[in-house]
Amino acid sequence: MANALKEKIAAGRLVTVMSAHNPLSARLAEEAGFDGIWASGFELSAAYGVPDASLLSMTQHLDMTRAICEQVAAPVVADLDTGYGNAINVGHVVGAYARAGAAAVVIEDKTFPKDTSLLAGGRQELVRVGEFEGKIEAAVAAGKDRSVLVIARTEALIADLGLDEALRRGRAYAEAGADLILIHSKKKTPDEIVAFTERWDGTVPLVIVPTAYPALTEAKVRTLGKIAIVIYANHAVRAAVTAMRKVFAEIRRDGGIDKVDKEIASVEDIFDLQRVGAMKAAEKKYLR
Amino acid sequence: MANALKEKIAAGRLVTVMSAHNPLSARLAEEAGFDGIWASGFELSAAYGVPDASLLSMTQHLDMTRAICEQVAAPVVADLDTGYGNAINVGHVVGAYARAGAAAVVIEDKTFPKDTSLLAGGRQELVRVGEFEGKIEAAVAAGKDRSVLVIARTEALIADLGLDEALRRGRAYAEAGADLILIHSKKKTPDEIVAFTERWDGTVPLVIVPTAYPALTEAKVRTLGKIAIVIYANHAVRAAVTAMRKVFAEIRRDGGIDKVDKEIASVEDIFDLQRVGAMKAAEKKYLR
Amino acid sequence: MANALKEKIAAGRLVTVMSAHNPLSARLAEEAGFDGIWASGFELSAAYGVPDASLLSMTQHLDMTRAICEQVAAPVVADLDTGYGNAINVGHVVGAYARAGAAAVVIEDKTFPKDTSLLAGGRQELVRVGEFEGKIEAAVAAGKDRSVLVIARTEALIADLGLDEALRRGRAYAEAGADLILIHSKKKTPDEIVAFTERWDGTVPLVIVPTAYPALTEAKVRTLGKIAIVIYANHAVRAAVTAMRKVFAEIRRDGGIDKVDKEIASVEDIFDLQRVGAMKAAEKKYLR
Amino acid sequence: MANALKEKIAAGRLVTVMSAHNPLSARLAEEAGFDGIWASGFELSAAYGVPDASLLSMTQHLDMTRAICEQVAAPVVADLDTGYGNAINVGHVVGAYARAGAAAVVIEDKTFPKDTSLLAGGRQELVRVGEFEGKIEAAVAAGKDRSVLVIARTEALIADLGLDEALRRGRAYAEAGADLILIHSKKKTPDEIVAFTERWDGTVPLVIVPTAYPALTEAKVRTLGKIAIVIYANHAVRAAVTAMRKVFAEIRRDGGIDKVDKEIASVEDIFDLQRVGAMKAAEKKYLR
Repeated sequence: MANALKEKIAAGRLVTVMSAHNPLSARLAEEAGFDGIWASGFELSAAYGVPDASLLSMTQHLDMTRAICEQVAAPVVADLDTGYGNAINVGHVVGAYARAGAAAVVIEDKTFPKDTSLLAGGRQELVRVGEFEGKIEAAVAAGKDRSVLVIARTEALIADLGLDEALRRGRAYAEAGADLILIHSKKKTPDEIVAFTERWDGTVPLVIVPTAYPALTEAKVRTLGKIAIVIYANHAVRAAVTAMRKVFAEIRRDGGIDKVDKEIASVEDIFDLQRVGAMKAAEKKYLR
Repeated sequence: MANALKEKIAAGRLVTVMSAHNPLSARLAEEAGFDGIWASGFELSAAYGVPDASLLSMTQHLDMTRAICEQVAAPVVADLDTGYGNAINVGHVVGAYARAGAAAVVIEDKTFPKDTSLLAGGRQELVRVGEFEGKIEAAVAAGKDRSVLVIARTEALIADLGLDEALRRGRAYAEAGADLILIHSKKKTPDEIVAFTERWDGTVPLVIVPTAYPALTEAKVRTLGKIAIVIYANHAVRAAVTAMRKVFAEIRRDGGIDKVDKEIASVEDIFDLQRVGAMKAAEKKYLR
Repeated sequence: MANALKEKIAAGRLVTVMSAHNPLSARLAEEAGFDGIWASGFELSAAYGVPDASLLSMTQHLDMTRAICEQVAAPVVADLDTGYGNAINVGHVVGAYARAGAAAVVIEDKTFPKDTSLLAGGRQELVRVGEFEGKIEAAVAAGKDRSVLVIARTEALIADLGLDEALRRGRAYAEAGADLILIHSKKKTPDEIVAFTERWDGTVPLVIVPTAYPALTEAKVRTLGKIAIVIYANHAVRAAVTAMRKVFAEIRRDGGIDKVDKEIASVEDIFDLQRVGAMKAAEKKYLR
Repeated sequence: MANALKEKIAAGRLVTVMSAHNPLSARLAEEAGFDGIWASGFELSAAYGVPDASLLSMTQHLDMTRAICEQVAAPVVADLDTGYGNAINVGHVVGAYARAGAAAVVIEDKTFPKDTSLLAGGRQELVRVGEFEGKIEAAVAAGKDRSVLVIARTEALIADLGLDEALRRGRAYAEAGADLILIHSKKKTPDEIVAFTERWDGTVPLVIVPTAYPALTEAKVRTLGKIAIVIYANHAVRAAVTAMRKVFAEIRRDGGIDKVDKEIASVEDIFDLQRVGAMKAAEKKYLR
């Protein structure tokens, strides 16, 4: 089975992936030209109004991921958090995401239930390397039939364990079969990630999530080499929140929608995003 | 069982209701000071990337409505479209929305499957008055135990049937037990709604959705009297789309997130919306 | 894409399909040697304790069908009732069932919401032939990529419209692209179905559901020819109800489970059906 | 808010609770006269064809529990396994089950992901007492508004930790606020449970699940005192499996359904269980 993400990575160009919390945001990301979609646990948790701390169930995330896969052609990278349990859960879950159409899955080496990575004072505890290797192997086995890429995410830097431990884990996970290593950092500057990348001697490419260190542009990432994918992991929901807050406040202040009506996407714009035109064409063909 | 929406209406102040497509947008609407939340079929369809034409299942909308009810204190008005079938379906469905926590339900007098109301060239066909009266009665019976308000929505003006037919239907629906009548119009000016309101002599108050005629401000609505609720039915998703489009384009153009990072809500803002603080307090109390 | 059901039909042997209301009953049917699984709307409605009258949502049935497809190798025939709306809904829905793994879909020519076919005094009204042809064409188009068979079910005999109308509809549906025609009858003897089959001159094979006329054995069906599939449409749930009633009553009467314990499947039997052995093997491999 | 289960326990009569895997089995249990329904994780896992090892998601179990609560008047005892994570998850989850209508929740002191209790060679590891006390407190707090009973289940005997540890845990959990203590045993005779009960000096009553030791009848349980609830935890699915296997084999052997048709519940019986009569009455009232 072909895997569009694998092909994009193989082409050697830096792959950019934008987060989504529903098919609509995914479609907008695809329209904007991003190479792939990040079916983000953080964004979906935010959309549901709950902390990103293993509170949403696997099914809630899986259903949204499936809905996204159905509405975009771009490859979808599914955020599986810690894999919803042990290696057995990982195998069960990766099979389900593969059938839902995910091109890649990311599992991280934290304990369950996780806490979100960038939270000051969050609980950040890692599982043993051996345990996580088993999870990677189970994920690889479960995704093989559909050529799902397995991205192993180490939170060693998030847990303040240092570069050496991060590298050690990254190498072990690559050995265990991970197709890419996601190295996460909460530092406000790119230095830590740059240092990791420079020292990275593993056999597989890297993935980064520059939320905390936005100064690391794609141009700079390209000069570093070794990094195959950049994930912008929360910008859809952050943009949406900003706008809804502003527009809601304006409506309250104006006592009406007359002014905001010209500032926001029209109802017809939304119709287009809903593919109403295709439905009308189908109605002509099939409704009698 | 108390019903916060009923109390607000009884208080005599114009009730403003903002649309939402997930608990996050609902929470932002509540924060902004809106009196209630519109669990909008149009917004949810848009969020799923499909036309608002009875394609989402009842369960998909019910699950999202329940999730919204769980995350806001503001009363939630559930958009049931045509009620997912006949009067039997309506009874089944209204019971489910009542248990999910909805304060009110809206059912419209179009045939199933519906087409969205403001679409130029959309299919707009109404069921017989007698059939819809039966649906209203079934809804009232199903919602009674939990004091759910039943709002009957007539699409007579949307279907170009004229003011007289709209008034006739409104009166019949009020007679059948509807607590409020939602009168919908696709005209670009408020004239039609103003005319309807002036001629309205039914026994129950009105609800309007001024999407097409945004010039009708709350101040003007108050002078008209008779209108108890204004629903802003699609402004959450339209605001979100506008912002995501803009931010995505900027990131593509800049080749990175450095610039947009200062323009959008911070990750910490999102944590607050997720009530991370309450979780951290609970962790102190319960994690040992 | 291969379709195991198509291959079985092509092989010329009468295909027997057993109903299921969950993956467990499907697995037992597969174990017993049935060729395929009927993801039955009637059984699922019964499992949920509600009438088979379009009360369960599409999502509820789709989720169960997907779960069944994940747990059996046998091809699954999905019961889509009337297709959940018009031809547009049918296209939407068939796409979803195809992705869920269904080998075939059945849509029937009744109006929505349907009433169950064998209910004395049930509402049985058919849509126009032209309307249903559009639905078939939409189904065929939506299922093509995954080689889903489209089975058109006519309820002409259920609605007391006579053999001629049933034949006329069957032919029209085959012309519109249906891969098979399901002819349903509520008669207590096979005569009506036999007569229909003998007169059938359509280009595609037939499917029957002998619930009402159990005397029509597979041996007799084979002698009739033209019939490719026999669906036993409700025997899983009927068997389960019978047994649960009996066992529950025994436990109440005995004031305990000592006696029934030897009469019912052991806990270890259930473990085997849950594939606990495979999990234990995976644990050995992946848990460290 | 009243709690029917609490009232039954207070009445002093031994409360018998039967397992269910869907609303239909729950309805049959209610009909048979059981006092309550066990929304069993084991039965639901079996119904989905997967091991009872934290593979089903919380949402899958919650949705089924809600569906059961909607179809029976009898109080429903929800099987939450280990609570789907830590105390924060427990609080989140118990709130959801309370809103779904559960009268009681059971959480057990095993680590996540759990393994089923009666499996020879299963993984049986317990969390620290302090950790579990926090979970109980979080459950109690989350269920208080709706008067949900919190049943703490200790697996100390399942994990071969001995009577003393079981008693120590039981007492600690009662101190932490549990309304009842479920003591589970895998012994083939009642001796261990009898010994535990005789030594039990905690402040709250006990719950037992005599799957492994069926010889302990209700009459004997009553003589022991201290035990308020007996849960028959898997007999619905075991009865159903036995019957489906038998009936499926008969149909295969007979090459038809003629013979089994007289041995199993009729289609009309199923209509009654689906409450078709009530729907027909509602149709008369509301369909015009």
